[in-house]
Amino acid sequence: MQRIALVGAGFIGTVHAANLAAHPGVQFDLVYDVDEHRAGDVARRHGAVAVTDVEQIYDPDRVDAVLVASSTDTHAEHLRRAADAGVAVLCEKPIDRELDRAADTVAYVRARQVPAMMAFNRRFDRDYAELKATVDSGAVGEVALIQLTSRGPELPPLDYLRVSGGQMRDQAVHFFDLARWISGADVVAVFATGSALAEPRIAEFGDTDIAAVTLRLATGALVQIDTSRRTGYGYDERIEVLGSNGMVEAHRHRAGAVIRYTIGRAIEKGMHPGWFERIKPTYAATLDHFVDALDTGEPPSPSLDDGLRAQAIAEAAARSLTSGRSEPVQYPGA
Amino acid sequence: MQRIALVGAGFIGTVHAANLAAHPGVQFDLVYDVDEHRAGDVARRHGAVAVTDVEQIYDPDRVDAVLVASSTDTHAEHLRRAADAGVAVLCEKPIDRELDRAADTVAYVRARQVPAMMAFNRRFDRDYAELKATVDSGAVGEVALIQLTSRGPELPPLDYLRVSGGQMRDQAVHFFDLARWISGADVVAVFATGSALAEPRIAEFGDTDIAAVTLRLATGALVQIDTSRRTGYGYDERIEVLGSNGMVEAHRHRAGAVIRYTIGRAIEKGMHPGWFERIKPTYAATLDHFVDALDTGEPPSPSLDDGLRAQAIAEAAARSLTSGRSEPVQYPGA
Amino acid sequence: MQRIALVGAGFIGTVHAANLAAHPGVQFDLVYDVDEHRAGDVARRHGAVAVTDVEQIYDPDRVDAVLVASSTDTHAEHLRRAADAGVAVLCEKPIDRELDRAADTVAYVRARQVPAMMAFNRRFDRDYAELKATVDSGAVGEVALIQLTSRGPELPPLDYLRVSGGQMRDQAVHFFDLARWISGADVVAVFATGSALAEPRIAEFGDTDIAAVTLRLATGALVQIDTSRRTGYGYDERIEVLGSNGMVEAHRHRAGAVIRYTIGRAIEKGMHPGWFERIKPTYAATLDHFVDALDTGEPPSPSLDDGLRAQAIAEAAARSLTSGRSEPVQYPGA
Amino acid sequence: MQRIALVGAGFIGTVHAANLAAHPGVQFDLVYDVDEHRAGDVARRHGAVAVTDVEQIYDPDRVDAVLVASSTDTHAEHLRRAADAGVAVLCEKPIDRELDRAADTVAYVRARQVPAMMAFNRRFDRDYAELKATVDSGAVGEVALIQLTSRGPELPPLDYLRVSGGQMRDQAVHFFDLARWISGADVVAVFATGSALAEPRIAEFGDTDIAAVTLRLATGALVQIDTSRRTGYGYDERIEVLGSNGMVEAHRHRAGAVIRYTIGRAIEKGMHPGWFERIKPTYAATLDHFVDALDTGEPPSPSLDDGLRAQAIAEAAARSLTSGRSEPVQYPGA
Repeated sequence: MQRIALVGAGFIGTVHAANLAAHPGVQFDLVYDVDEHRAGDVARRHGAVAVTDVEQIYDPDRVDAVLVASSTDTHAEHLRRAADAGVAVLCEKPIDRELDRAADTVAYVRARQVPAMMAFNRRFDRDYAELKATVDSGAVGEVALIQLTSRGPELPPLDYLRVSGGQMRDQAVHFFDLARWISGADVVAVFATGSALAEPRIAEFGDTDIAAVTLRLATGALVQIDTSRRTGYGYDERIEVLGSNGMVEAHRHRAGAVIRYTIGRAIEKGMHPGWFERIKPTYAATLDHFVDALDTGEPPSPSLDDGLRAQAIAEAAARSLTSGRSEPVQYPGA
Repeated sequence: MQRIALVGAGFIGTVHAANLAAHPGVQFDLVYDVDEHRAGDVARRHGAVAVTDVEQIYDPDRVDAVLVASSTDTHAEHLRRAADAGVAVLCEKPIDRELDRAADTVAYVRARQVPAMMAFNRRFDRDYAELKATVDSGAVGEVALIQLTSRGPELPPLDYLRVSGGQMRDQAVHFFDLARWISGADVVAVFATGSALAEPRIAEFGDTDIAAVTLRLATGALVQIDTSRRTGYGYDERIEVLGSNGMVEAHRHRAGAVIRYTIGRAIEKGMHPGWFERIKPTYAATLDHFVDALDTGEPPSPSLDDGLRAQAIAEAAARSLTSGRSEPVQYPGA
Repeated sequence: MQRIALVGAGFIGTVHAANLAAHPGVQFDLVYDVDEHRAGDVARRHGAVAVTDVEQIYDPDRVDAVLVASSTDTHAEHLRRAADAGVAVLCEKPIDRELDRAADTVAYVRARQVPAMMAFNRRFDRDYAELKATVDSGAVGEVALIQLTSRGPELPPLDYLRVSGGQMRDQAVHFFDLARWISGADVVAVFATGSALAEPRIAEFGDTDIAAVTLRLATGALVQIDTSRRTGYGYDERIEVLGSNGMVEAHRHRAGAVIRYTIGRAIEKGMHPGWFERIKPTYAATLDHFVDALDTGEPPSPSLDDGLRAQAIAEAAARSLTSGRSEPVQYPGA
Repeated sequence: MQRIALVGAGFIGTVHAANLAAHPGVQFDLVYDVDEHRAGDVARRHGAVAVTDVEQIYDPDRVDAVLVASSTDTHAEHLRRAADAGVAVLCEKPIDRELDRAADTVAYVRARQVPAMMAFNRRFDRDYAELKATVDSGAVGEVALIQLTSRGPELPPLDYLRVSGGQMRDQAVHFFDLARWISGADVVAVFATGSALAEPRIAEFGDTDIAAVTLRLATGALVQIDTSRRTGYGYDERIEVLGSNGMVEAHRHRAGAVIRYTIGRAIEKGMHPGWFERIKPTYAATLDHFVDALDTGEPPSPSLDDGLRAQAIAEAAARSLTSGRSEPVQYPGA
């Protein structure tokens, strides 16, 4: 039984809380949030205790691990606290908005040797995991090209976008991680181009709402990512891997199985309305993996270093957006 | 908040227990089972109390409703107890193996006016509910033909089959209910023919493991049901409704979204391995409806009478299996 | 090179004419029709000659085979003429409206040993041929249940229906043949029930426009056929074969590959508008097989006997429509 | 009736010949090829005459139009001959391997005002035409992103690739045209990156066998093209258009409709083996459009200028492959 505390009781925090409470291998006792009310609500719903002093969380006598789902600017601090306390940590992305500070944090945690895992939950999507297993089995041969589609239904509020770090760091970063993970190869160069078509005002702070990104892998294989903030038809994700002797895809999901036939038309169910409906089961699966790793003593994966590398790709992509050329990826400390 | 007690802590009882515990509008305090151990296990898992005296369940000061998931031969008794105690009841099918006794039970409960609902959970399947709404909207015109497929992956044990009441009463009865519900019309005649192909020994006690059933509705519309105990490829359900100006189907489910392409072939995910993976979400949805009905004071649906009518169709189907002719359906008390 | 003459220059005659003209192994010189104009038009389009005396067709010095696509009541006569002349014959169904006369005709042709083939063209549908090959390979085990759907888009004119022989003999007969062919087993009993929902007036002459038919095979396997004269959404055919360890289906065709996604909906292409768009390629494939058989000296298949047997099933189905019971199939001469 | 002569009797010439012969609005009398035997074979098969002197083709007393399907290096010459003779022309791509010479040729033909059309046959694919109509209808809003997939089954012979002009000019050019046509916008910049993964030797002459291309349109919309010479699973094409309020796709084709279900798997038909099986019907549809244009006097489309513009994009793409940056597209004469 792993005693896991929760840091952060916002929307994603409540999702994690429900999974912690329902997990048969987890004892979920403590919740912390800067907003005491939010922490208290979450604690009450699941029979846990809300603590007001963050030190109570990082108490190795009471907790084995911490799940960090607090606001982005506090991730690095909580990672360091966990390292200092010698408790394991499962952390939402990113490690830190600044790549250098993120790299320092990873080095700090690594030196203290606590088990640490990035919550890149899409790796634990049932279909993506099967796609990855298919690629690893050699059934499609050597990876030649990966296509990733990541499209959100509606533009987030302008206030959010202004501080989000931009489409590459905020939205595409999950798919940079998927590209590395699926191919098992590092990214050597990135080309990105984008536009502000849904909301021209975001161009004022240098952001895009639609972008086409091309990654070149060390093997010579290529990756195409298309990413959009606004579809008009719901949330849309898909992955396709072309190999040297076959192809495998995880196709877009439909939100139901009903088809109506009329003259000339078959009207089927469309996409899920939002990202949460689509990827909700991945949160529990991510937690499962983390708990299994703690139980067996295996290092959990993806590691903080994976988080750092995805972030380094996002930095190169952001540079390419303005340079108009393929940019080399520089991995910190590599 | 509805205080709902659980009667029966077998496999389906544990499914109901988890849903009762997770439902925000339900207070789940009491569990009863003839096997005290089973009751205790379920109670412990969800912070409820196992009672050993069934009278403690039927106490209107402590419970508002009872969910009956005990063995088939005790359903009628629990329905009567609930009626006597004046508590609402959600009951697994059938009411009673004997149609006459079932009819008496329904009359008994009706006279005491407690809210009572049959747990025909397939009505609450997301896709079937949408299919029904499409039919009701008039989008496909008047119902002309319904096709229902119900195929289990593997033959249940012979010992179970021997006491199951036969394929019509045990397996097809859910689909007899769906046919009535979707069409909004009663069944006037049934033709059924079947074989024992997977297990010839079940022919010795007059049962079938594969059957083709044809229902004729009062409107002249037709229903085809194919039902099999053993597929060799997993659990398979589908429904198709042909109307006077269109068609709507709830197609078979696939257990994932990954496709591998090789020379000449696209290898996709197949069916769910068993019925439970396929219809698991319907149990929570059935409970939702029951709680909503209690909250609003509306009569819950499907009613016990719906249960009785599905059973009457099963009786006629069983007669047809041996008579070789279309048999009229006699509804008790109608 | 086979010299094949065409008898009948109506709509299907023109389809056959184009295929005869395009076939590299066929010399297409002669056309006959009771309507000289129609014969002349077809002949001109393909560089053939229209003959006015039917005797000129049955001249073994000029023709090796005759393709009979004339009106139903003349099929038997042309079959006998071909037999007398010693030329091969490919004949549209039925052999004769009356089963006894059909049986006499088959015996007559058989005695004279000319190669003769029924144009049950659905056997040559690309998908159905692959489905049959899959069944024959044993990949789904022993056949347990076959589902056949046959639905036309619009009710034919009442004047046609009045002389068509009824839905069993006119529409379902193709699917009776498919059931025998796919299963490799003969039909021992038939239950059929139907209604006149699209056009109540056809009930006056004992016909149906929607019917559910159940066949029992000699092996104990079952066949369900649903057949409708009017769908409101185009032409719809599909086949599904459940075996003892798997299932194979030839799914309904869509008329295109374009999907539009909007909020909650994916709007796809529907069915083909009519039967001809769906099964057009089967005519050329049927002719291919006939020509191959003539070239190699193998007996062409399906035989006239296959035609007779499908017709005998239709007779039993028609009896069942009024008797309300499962009717045994009596094969003439068997 | 348009009298159309054929220039070129290679593989594609024979496809065009069959379509010319079968077209009810075309009189197909003359064939020319540098190889008299090939011309003779084609002529014989369709009742036409093979001419040995190319001048006989460009005789306005005998022909209204010429279909040019000869070897690439002779296209420009035949376009000029047609212009001189005042006969219309339907020409396979490209106009000329050299963009400047191609531009001169277009100017030459334009000055003489003969109807001239590029045989970009994918515009006439049934699904692509419907996708284009959907976009034009406004049903998905303003075009934001187009995804095009173009993947051949097997690497062509090295000798062919050496003189093909490279993957951008030879394979991707069709999709550059589709991007312009679907969006109705011109391409302003191109980024391309590629590798020689299937056949490293082609890197020696600067070619790629897999490439990812990103186009930026004048509207700010983006286009992603992935193109591969070798899939290992057959021929694969698809198009997806994301608009400001919806999406439309023309999905990949399957070569049949049969599905076999086994434990955990649904084994479906895969892709067509080669490009010809997939796009065969587009040749007849292209000819239809050309003949319609001649009949009505409307200018046929796509024009030679469309051919020139697709070629200019290919030139920029080829430059980008080596420069590693987004290259502006320079349209000749624009």
